[in-house]
Amino acid sequence: MAPVTNGRVLFNEVPTGFPEPGKTIVYDTTQKIDLDNEPLNGGFLVKVLELSVDPYMRGRMRHPSKKSYSPPFTLGAPLNGFGVGVVLRSEHADVKVGDHLYGFAFDHAQYFIRKTLDGLEKLDNPNNLPWSYFVGVLGMPGKTAHYAWNEYSHAKAGETVFVSTGAGPVGSLVIQLAKAQGLKVIGSAGSEDKVAFMKEIGADVAFNYKTTNTLEVLEREGGIDIYWDNVGGETLEAALEAAKNGARFIECGMISGYNSGGAPVRNLFHVISKSITISGFIVGRLEGNWGKKFWQEVAPKVASGEIKHREHVYEGLDKLPQAILDVQQGNNTAKAVVHVARE
Amino acid sequence: MAPVTNGRVLFNEVPTGFPEPGKTIVYDTTQKIDLDNEPLNGGFLVKVLELSVDPYMRGRMRHPSKKSYSPPFTLGAPLNGFGVGVVLRSEHADVKVGDHLYGFAFDHAQYFIRKTLDGLEKLDNPNNLPWSYFVGVLGMPGKTAHYAWNEYSHAKAGETVFVSTGAGPVGSLVIQLAKAQGLKVIGSAGSEDKVAFMKEIGADVAFNYKTTNTLEVLEREGGIDIYWDNVGGETLEAALEAAKNGARFIECGMISGYNSGGAPVRNLFHVISKSITISGFIVGRLEGNWGKKFWQEVAPKVASGEIKHREHVYEGLDKLPQAILDVQQGNNTAKAVVHVARE
Repeated sequence: MAPVTNGRVLFNEVPTGFPEPGKTIVYDTTQKIDLDNEPLNGGFLVKVLELSVDPYMRGRMRHPSKKSYSPPFTLGAPLNGFGVGVVLRSEHADVKVGDHLYGFAFDHAQYFIRKTLDGLEKLDNPNNLPWSYFVGVLGMPGKTAHYAWNEYSHAKAGETVFVSTGAGPVGSLVIQLAKAQGLKVIGSAGSEDKVAFMKEIGADVAFNYKTTNTLEVLEREGGIDIYWDNVGGETLEAALEAAKNGARFIECGMISGYNSGGAPVRNLFHVISKSITISGFIVGRLEGNWGKKFWQEVAPKVASGEIKHREHVYEGLDKLPQAILDVQQGNNTAKAVVHVARE
Repeated sequence: MAPVTNGRVLFNEVPTGFPEPGKTIVYDTTQKIDLDNEPLNGGFLVKVLELSVDPYMRGRMRHPSKKSYSPPFTLGAPLNGFGVGVVLRSEHADVKVGDHLYGFAFDHAQYFIRKTLDGLEKLDNPNNLPWSYFVGVLGMPGKTAHYAWNEYSHAKAGETVFVSTGAGPVGSLVIQLAKAQGLKVIGSAGSEDKVAFMKEIGADVAFNYKTTNTLEVLEREGGIDIYWDNVGGETLEAALEAAKNGARFIECGMISGYNSGGAPVRNLFHVISKSITISGFIVGRLEGNWGKKFWQEVAPKVASGEIKHREHVYEGLDKLPQAILDVQQGNNTAKAVVHVARE
């Protein structure tokens, strides 16, 4: 077969504010790949099926001199992140043609060749679920919700939890885990459709933070015992104001500051006056504690439909830059997945 | 005996910035008291010996509509806080003449009459230590250091702790507890004298934050595993920058914001990227866990001189307003104690 185009999304420029499709991140079609003959040098060739677009990716669009928990993207090279793909050819002893791979080391490309399984693992899919689930409710976002809720919430039935971005892939699972434990759940999101979804999955109170004052809701509902934070900034300030004594704050994300260099928080003194514990985490560091339980507890309920989730599917790798911007601006309607190819 | 003047320090006005002696807090000599004949109505008469002046008191100088963990001071009435006194007369079954009392319910006055022991307890002083110790290293500040260090530090030998206001009554005990556990200790304070004291009590690195950049010190020393925060604001920001993965932050105070309505913190995202845990606390809520151990572990070492501490004694109740301002501005040289009277 003649060489085919290997579409890729390149990191073209460090953004100052929001990333810009076509400028800071660019879909590129200049690379060709000969799928039959490209030398593997002991490695394997992966056809990318699904790519995940997540809020944390903004943090990787930085100058390499700036340290953080995840490595910066390389200028001129493809972005990368979580994805699912299928092996087309292999010279690697542990990787067979037809194997499905998952991991955070997926190039944002239609195809890539890799020599090792670093950052990749073989996927088991006994229930024949759509592959996209493995970058959403059964992937990093789902694990984020499950691991940290179990590690840090110390939830008791009857308590009240506030979940920001409650219609997203992380927040929506947190809502369902909390309801299953008998908590009262308050969820916020940025559209009426997302509010409806939060109610559908069990939120007792769901509101649109763009049209409703967060602090007023939290105070009217009598305050909160747990705050699941995906937002930071003003929303975190409201949660601090409305926290009860002994509240637990789980810091999962702070997207309000990702495109502005950080959103200030002015009322941290409540941490002292209310004996609040704030726990920040990176999902990978909790893998050892909860990785097995996740597959035992969450996967069957996803397969049975008991755990609900939604996807916003972007068709084609060329849509990935827009998906990235949508996620940073909250314009995606649910978990953002880029459907790159069918098998 | 004829009635004598009962000097009092009155809360005269809610301050907008720093409290102002003679304006927002006023020493008043208009009240007379007949020590022999003032009716007790079943209560007891206390002669005040020592009063404690502490940073948290600024938070009580507020409009009563503003909620916080400690009640607001009452306009026109004496301030109150921790103190030690001796009973001159009593009609109360549990209180005898000559008993020494300690507690947070001490009027800032030379004498007061009380009907119950609410907020007061009888003091045991087997080592005949100066009464002022019981509002300092053996009082609320010492308990604050001991209880929270044991509850939240999860300290391991070889780790590095940063203690802000390390020459104060809380910080200086934290430094000594940390050194006893084999930690490397970095302390900051606002004068060369305080720096010398921190070195004397064992700090490995001690610096004056007014002349030395906090973040540069913390980074040069290789980062921190634990931060004991008495300051908030920019110092907290520096500690977040220099924190290692898995760091523990113990939030004891945030004096940088007490007189300005709160100091913003802009880099809270490190809480996530470094998996930091932040624990806020109020000492009283930890009493049950550590109250007994404190007397077993700390009191003998204070009596033997193994635990060192310093006092800044203000002679006379009329100096209390200035002591309050000094503590808010960091102009006291050590634990601020107002020596009201000898027995």
